[in-house]
Amino acid sequence: MTKRALTGIKPTGEPHLGNWLGAIQPALELARDYETFYFIADYHALTSVHSAEDLRRYVRDITATYLAFGLDPKNSFFYRQSDIPEIFELAWILSCFTPKGFMNRAHAYKDAVAKNEAAGKDSDDGINMGLFGYPVLMAADILMFNADVVPVGADQKQHVEFARDIAERFNHNYGKVFFHLPEPRISATVKTVVGLDGRKMSKSYDNTIPLFLEEKALQKRINQVVTNSQAPEEPKDPGQSHIFALHALLLNAEEDKALRERYLAGGMGWGMAKKLFFESLNEQLRGPRSEYNRLIADASYLDSILAQGKDRARAVAVPFLDELRAAIGIR
Amino acid sequence: MTKRALTGIKPTGEPHLGNWLGAIQPALELARDYETFYFIADYHALTSVHSAEDLRRYVRDITATYLAFGLDPKNSFFYRQSDIPEIFELAWILSCFTPKGFMNRAHAYKDAVAKNEAAGKDSDDGINMGLFGYPVLMAADILMFNADVVPVGADQKQHVEFARDIAERFNHNYGKVFFHLPEPRISATVKTVVGLDGRKMSKSYDNTIPLFLEEKALQKRINQVVTNSQAPEEPKDPGQSHIFALHALLLNAEEDKALRERYLAGGMGWGMAKKLFFESLNEQLRGPRSEYNRLIADASYLDSILAQGKDRARAVAVPFLDELRAAIGIR
Repeated sequence: MTKRALTGIKPTGEPHLGNWLGAIQPALELARDYETFYFIADYHALTSVHSAEDLRRYVRDITATYLAFGLDPKNSFFYRQSDIPEIFELAWILSCFTPKGFMNRAHAYKDAVAKNEAAGKDSDDGINMGLFGYPVLMAADILMFNADVVPVGADQKQHVEFARDIAERFNHNYGKVFFHLPEPRISATVKTVVGLDGRKMSKSYDNTIPLFLEEKALQKRINQVVTNSQAPEEPKDPGQSHIFALHALLLNAEEDKALRERYLAGGMGWGMAKKLFFESLNEQLRGPRSEYNRLIADASYLDSILAQGKDRARAVAVPFLDELRAAIGIR
Repeated sequence: MTKRALTGIKPTGEPHLGNWLGAIQPALELARDYETFYFIADYHALTSVHSAEDLRRYVRDITATYLAFGLDPKNSFFYRQSDIPEIFELAWILSCFTPKGFMNRAHAYKDAVAKNEAAGKDSDDGINMGLFGYPVLMAADILMFNADVVPVGADQKQHVEFARDIAERFNHNYGKVFFHLPEPRISATVKTVVGLDGRKMSKSYDNTIPLFLEEKALQKRINQVVTNSQAPEEPKDPGQSHIFALHALLLNAEEDKALRERYLAGGMGWGMAKKLFFESLNEQLRGPRSEYNRLIADASYLDSILAQGKDRARAVAVPFLDELRAAIGIR
């Protein structure tokens, strides 16, 4: 039987180059080897997005983005988390088998506490119960569909381990293997994408290259990538250049070698280096951009895709939750 | 408009005299003044009841018990929490507006931590996320039906205060009064019911008088109430007698005075005092006991009552959750 891979997509803002190379592309590649489940984690976003207008826009954007990059909704499960309310009931069930100590040790929570303490605030300042408990909801997302494989960054491996442990406790208590134990799949070649200023590309640093800018705006944005003050004729060290780091992400080994030599040879100014990167990126984004623009203007089509995904996913979730209810004595 | 009162009933074991006088009777009296919502909090019980068979039995028992004591399912909302899955989605929504600090300060959690620490264990030993987060689920229980009044013991007043505070945060963030602010209603005359050994009647002390014992078993149980070694002819202090404390709960002022005088006069042994209490209690329980026995044998009738309650309660919950979803941007 084909194994299942599950990926959650948190809609928290305009998708950028880092999202594409670091998340969207690897997620879409899963469809080659697995039966794929992709869900828009709108209720995870609610831990931080408290504006209805923003949340709606982010969900629309991310739906159109994945479709524009080639997600095939016929051959995968593609749904909104909020369209599967069974997940929230399962999250409650699992919470009754989740030691609170797990959440105390969750990386995201510990980071937030460390920040508060460094700032001299109360440890739990600004931390809501959604944020504290979201690994339980994540376990429900995973276990509801009995995903075999969950691709994660190294910092999220812990979430899959929590899900495994909770699943084992539940299975053991009720004496049957209701849940498979999911495996984290940590990509060997995770691409770190630098932003305009050389730090990791991230909305919170305001250093992103949004994916669907029109050509001119895209070029303008790329021109903002920070460079050193070397003159055009000087040889340039690719290992020290943010432009090179970004451009190389789009190249195969041969192209990478050729570009590297061009930097080292000297005679190419930063303006030209940026132009080459822009052209390369623009070439790759042209198709998805036009598809994105078409999709984002067609809300009813997007809705119909998500409605299909809802029906397919609930056809799995509803009978499974019924089975779990019977097991715990709720039916 | 008639105000709404909401009462949750946690099915965690065989109902006893303390439950009747301390919870069931006051809950049923609410129907005189309010539109009443009674729900069987089966998913709250899951924080501690991890046996399907037990959970099913407790739910059946408590359903039959409330009906036997006169709950009118036609003129009130009477439903199982698990039959309104919308509550779990609402609980997630509310968790995103609940400071974790509230839960840190919750009495039940703090008690559990204190016990762990006194025993030299890790503070969070044996505490699951259901237990830690259950005030959020309770807020969802209350706010889903916009209850105006929630009758609570003094130790649970805090839960209603959390629900108010969470409601205010949500209303404020989305700029509209979606949720009424519920008021705790603390009974002025909470009856403390002593158990066989004079401590508070509680399953955990194994000192209860179960409500639906057959007559002989009931009499036998009452004979186990601890008394002192005074001889029959001696005058007895009603203020020092567990039998008197129990018996008085069933009496009006005039009857109370008469019994008190009989104790003080001397000439009545403990055997007679117990017999009088038994007769008084048995008289009051005879009707409910026979009704309970009839109901508990008729599972399909109990199911039909809960199914009606489910339909009535979901007719309120479903459109309300839709309104909330639209407000937060999920629709």
